[in-house]
Amino acid sequence: MFEVTNENFNTIYPHLERTLKNASFIAIDTELTGLNVDDVKNSLFDSINERYEKQRSSIQPYIIIQFGITAFQRIQHENQYTAEAFNFFLLPRSIPSKNRQFVWQVAALEFLTAYEFDFNKFAYNGISYLNEDDQAILQQQLEENVLFHNVERSMSYREEDSLKDYINQVFEWLNTASDETNSLKIDTPTPILQYLTHKELRNRFPNVWTFSGNNMVTVMKIRPDSRAILEQEEGSILENVLLESYIGFSKVFKLLVTLKKPIVAHNALLDLMFMYQQFYKPLPKKYTNFKDSLHQLFPTIYDTKFLSFELREHLSTEQKWKFNSLSGLVEYFTEKQGKYLALGSPNINLTCKINSDKSNVVPSTKYHTAGWDSYFAGYVFIRLIHVFSAKCYGQSSTLKHFTHTELMNNVKSFANCINIIRGSTSHLKLDGPEPGSTRPKWLFVKTLASKPITAMQIAEKMSSFGAVDIKQCTSKRMLVAVANHGRGSIAVSSGLLTWLLHQKLQRSS
Amino acid sequence: MFEVTNENFNTIYPHLERTLKNASFIAIDTELTGLNVDDVKNSLFDSINERYEKQRSSIQPYIIIQFGITAFQRIQHENQYTAEAFNFFLLPRSIPSKNRQFVWQVAALEFLTAYEFDFNKFAYNGISYLNEDDQAILQQQLEENVLFHNVERSMSYREEDSLKDYINQVFEWLNTASDETNSLKIDTPTPILQYLTHKELRNRFPNVWTFSGNNMVTVMKIRPDSRAILEQEEGSILENVLLESYIGFSKVFKLLVTLKKPIVAHNALLDLMFMYQQFYKPLPKKYTNFKDSLHQLFPTIYDTKFLSFELREHLSTEQKWKFNSLSGLVEYFTEKQGKYLALGSPNINLTCKINSDKSNVVPSTKYHTAGWDSYFAGYVFIRLIHVFSAKCYGQSSTLKHFTHTELMNNVKSFANCINIIRGSTSHLKLDGPEPGSTRPKWLFVKTLASKPITAMQIAEKMSSFGAVDIKQCTSKRMLVAVANHGRGSIAVSSGLLTWLLHQKLQRSS
Repeated sequence: MFEVTNENFNTIYPHLERTLKNASFIAIDTELTGLNVDDVKNSLFDSINERYEKQRSSIQPYIIIQFGITAFQRIQHENQYTAEAFNFFLLPRSIPSKNRQFVWQVAALEFLTAYEFDFNKFAYNGISYLNEDDQAILQQQLEENVLFHNVERSMSYREEDSLKDYINQVFEWLNTASDETNSLKIDTPTPILQYLTHKELRNRFPNVWTFSGNNMVTVMKIRPDSRAILEQEEGSILENVLLESYIGFSKVFKLLVTLKKPIVAHNALLDLMFMYQQFYKPLPKKYTNFKDSLHQLFPTIYDTKFLSFELREHLSTEQKWKFNSLSGLVEYFTEKQGKYLALGSPNINLTCKINSDKSNVVPSTKYHTAGWDSYFAGYVFIRLIHVFSAKCYGQSSTLKHFTHTELMNNVKSFANCINIIRGSTSHLKLDGPEPGSTRPKWLFVKTLASKPITAMQIAEKMSSFGAVDIKQCTSKRMLVAVANHGRGSIAVSSGLLTWLLHQKLQRSS
Repeated sequence: MFEVTNENFNTIYPHLERTLKNASFIAIDTELTGLNVDDVKNSLFDSINERYEKQRSSIQPYIIIQFGITAFQRIQHENQYTAEAFNFFLLPRSIPSKNRQFVWQVAALEFLTAYEFDFNKFAYNGISYLNEDDQAILQQQLEENVLFHNVERSMSYREEDSLKDYINQVFEWLNTASDETNSLKIDTPTPILQYLTHKELRNRFPNVWTFSGNNMVTVMKIRPDSRAILEQEEGSILENVLLESYIGFSKVFKLLVTLKKPIVAHNALLDLMFMYQQFYKPLPKKYTNFKDSLHQLFPTIYDTKFLSFELREHLSTEQKWKFNSLSGLVEYFTEKQGKYLALGSPNINLTCKINSDKSNVVPSTKYHTAGWDSYFAGYVFIRLIHVFSAKCYGQSSTLKHFTHTELMNNVKSFANCINIIRGSTSHLKLDGPEPGSTRPKWLFVKTLASKPITAMQIAEKMSSFGAVDIKQCTSKRMLVAVANHGRGSIAVSSGLLTWLLHQKLQRSS
C-alpha cells in the first residue's frame, strides 16, 4: 500500500492518475473525526428524506482525516484483478480568508487509537484540501493580489523569521559575492513560505530573479531588461503553484469525478456525504438535490453492504455469513464458508510497491485504516458479484470463470443502491425512484392494563424482531417499528402487560 | 521535567503532591486546541465585562490538551529557588452518559506542530479529567449501579472481545487447574475493562473472588462463606477506582485549589478561564460571578505580563525590553540587558529527575510546551519581582539579596491584576474594584471632504499610536480608540483626508 502524505503527494500523483485511469473499478473508504452530535439517533421510522436531513446536520462539523482508494484492474484473458491501494492522510490547512476548524468526537478518537491511527502523521503531514467554494475564494484573492497581504498576517512567527533571514542572506550575497557566484539556493519548506520568498525577494532586489525548485528558491543576478522579459513570461505560475498546494487532495476527488469509473464502498452513505461536503460543496438541504448532484458526479456506485443483504436472500441457511460488517465479510470469504462458495472467483493480486511491506498477505489488524478498508471493500465486491453471477447460472456454477463484463452485468440492477442503517427502508436509490419498504408494517400498541407502559418495556417484549424503535403517543399507546418479521406472527407475551394489536398502519415511507 | 501521561500519572501523583505542598509559589501554563471563533475580535472599545463575555462564548468548544505546572520552592537561608516542572497531556475520555467532543482550530494545530507537539502522546496517553458537573453525574450513576449497563454499551469491540476472552480463561482454569494453582492473573489495560472484568467474573463464577493490582486482576478460588465476607468488606472500592480514573487530572486542579499557594502565569486570563470550564464548572454568564468564584478558588494570582508592563514604567529607555512575550522576557533576563539588571536575584535551580534530560539548561526550543512555559513564567516572575524590589530600595540595590517575604511584599499590590490584551483597560482586578483606563480618550473623527472615509484609511493615518480600533458611525464619522498616546498630541496629517478632532468623549468603562 502507498501511504500518501504532503511529503510525497506530488511525487505519487502521476502514478496514481495512471493507475486510476486503468482501473476497472475503484474502491474507497474514509476515516472520520466524528459521526453524530448528541441526540441524533437513527430510527426505523426515518424516511429517506428524514435520514438524509438528520445526517446532513449531524456530520457538518466533522471531517475525513484518512481517505483510502484502491484501484482494481481486471487482467485481460486471466481470471484475475490487480489491486493497488493508496492511503491518504488529510488535514485542512489554514487559509488566510477563513478560520478553518473541525470537531473531534472523543469516541471517534478512541476508536482510531484502537486501530493504531498515527495522529502525528495526520497533524504534521496531512494533505490539504479545498471544497469548490473555498477554492473559488482563494483563486479570486490570488488573481486580485489581495491574498499576499492576508498571508503575511497569517504567517507563523517562524515563517516570518525565516523570511527575514532569507532577505538578509540575499543582501549579504549581493554585497560580497563575486560575479562568478551567480546563484544562491534557499530552502523553503512550506508552499506559503516559497510563495512569499519569491514575492519579497523580487520586490526588494530589482537586480535578481528567483526560480522555483523542489522546496527551494534559486536566486540569480540578472540585468533589468532580462528581468522584464522573465516577468512577462512567467504569468501566474507562482500563484498557481500556491493554489495547487492548497487544493491538494481535492485534485484526486476531481480525478475520480472525471474518470466516472464504478465506485465501490461498504455502507457508503456516510462516506459519500462526507466526500461531497469536504471536496465539493456544502451538502444540499434537500435529499433529492443531493441525490441528483451526487449521481452527476459518480454515475455508478456499488455498496457492498447493500449487495450482501441482497445476496444473503439467495443463500441457504448454512451458507449465510454471521456478520456483514466489512471484516465479517472478509473473514467469510477468506476463512469460512464463503471460501468454498466463491471457488472460481477471480484471483485478487494486491501489488505492493514502494513505501510498504512487500508481502501480499493483508494483515487483519489493518481494519479501519482507510487504505486497507478500501482494498477490503473491493475484495468483498469481487467475491459477492462472482457468487451472484454463479447463482444466475445455476447452483453448480461457482467454479465458472466470468469476464469482468459478465460480472458487472449480473449486478447492474444493484448499482446506486445505498444501504440505510436502521431506516424505514433498507436502502436508497441514487438513479431512480426510491424503493418501497420491506420492513414489517408499523404496529399500534395499546395496553388494556391500568398501569401506563414505557417504551423500554415494549422494546424488551419485541426484541425477537431485531431492532425496535418506538414513538410514544400517550402513556398507554405507542407506535412500534421493528426491523424484520421475526419468526412467524407477532407474539403476544403473557407477561406483566397485555398487548392489544389494535391496528396495523400502512407505512408512510 | 516530568512528562506525565495516563501511564505514569498515578505513580507520579504522590511526588507531585509533596512538591506542590512545599512550594513557595506555583507557575502554570496551558496549550489549547483553539482560541476564538470567527468574527470574535478583541477591541480597544471592549470593557472588562464585554471582553469576558466575548471570550466566554468564544472558548467554550476548545480544550486544554497540555497543562504545565512548575513548583518553585525558596531554599531557606539561600538566595535560591528550586524549580520542579511537570508537563501533563490531557484528553477528555469518553464517558457513558455524554457525547464528549472538542473543536480543533487548524491554526492552533499548526501552531502546535511548529513546537513539536506530540499528537500521539495526546491521543493515546492523555490523562482524563472531569468538571464537577460531570463528576457528580458519574458518581451518581455508579452509586445507583446504572453505569454498568451504559459502560457495556460504550465498550469498544476490542474491550468486548477481551472480556469474553477473560471469561473463557477463567472457565478453563477452573476446569483444569489443580487445587494448588490457586490464582490466575489477567492483564486489564484500561480502567473500564478492569472494572467490568471484576464485575463479570464475580457475577459468572460464584466460587471465585477477584483482587485488583496494577493494570491487573487476580482471580482466586474461594469458599462461598469467605466470599460473602469479602463482598461486605469491599464496599465501593471498585467504583471509586473507576471514578478516580475518570477524574484523573481534575485531582491536580483540586489540589491546587486546596493549597491556595500563589499562582503565577503569563497573560493569564485565558489560562484561568479554560481551567475554570474544564476542571470546575461551566463559565458563569456574568464577569462579576466569574471574578468572585475564581478568587475563592485561587486567592493570589500573579500575571507576569501585567507585571512586566508595570515594571517597564520604572526602567530607563536603554533598560527596557523589546518584547514582553514570555520568550522575549526570558531572553531579556538571560541574554540581554536584564542580565545585569537582576544580578543579585536568586539562583533558579531546575531539578530534573526521572524521565527527562539531566542538563540544567533549558533549551530555548521548548517554548510552547506547557511544562516549560510554566517554568519560564515562574523564572520571569522571580526576575521581575527582584528588579521591582531593587527599585524600591533605590538604584544601586540590584545586587542586594531579598528574602522570599520581602520579594512577595514588594509586589503585593499587583496580586490578582490580570492583563487584558487590546482592551479599554489594561488589566482586570480579581480581588477589588476594577481599574480605570489608562488608554488615550476615544476620538470622534469626522471628515470635511465630500468623499466618505473608510475605517482602513483612518487606521493607516493613526498607526503611530499603536493598535487602533474604529467604530464607524456614519460614512463620514467614526469613533477611534488607540492603544497609547504616541509621541505628543494627535497628529493631523495633510493627506487625502482632512480630519477634524471634533470632540473628545469620556470613555464609559
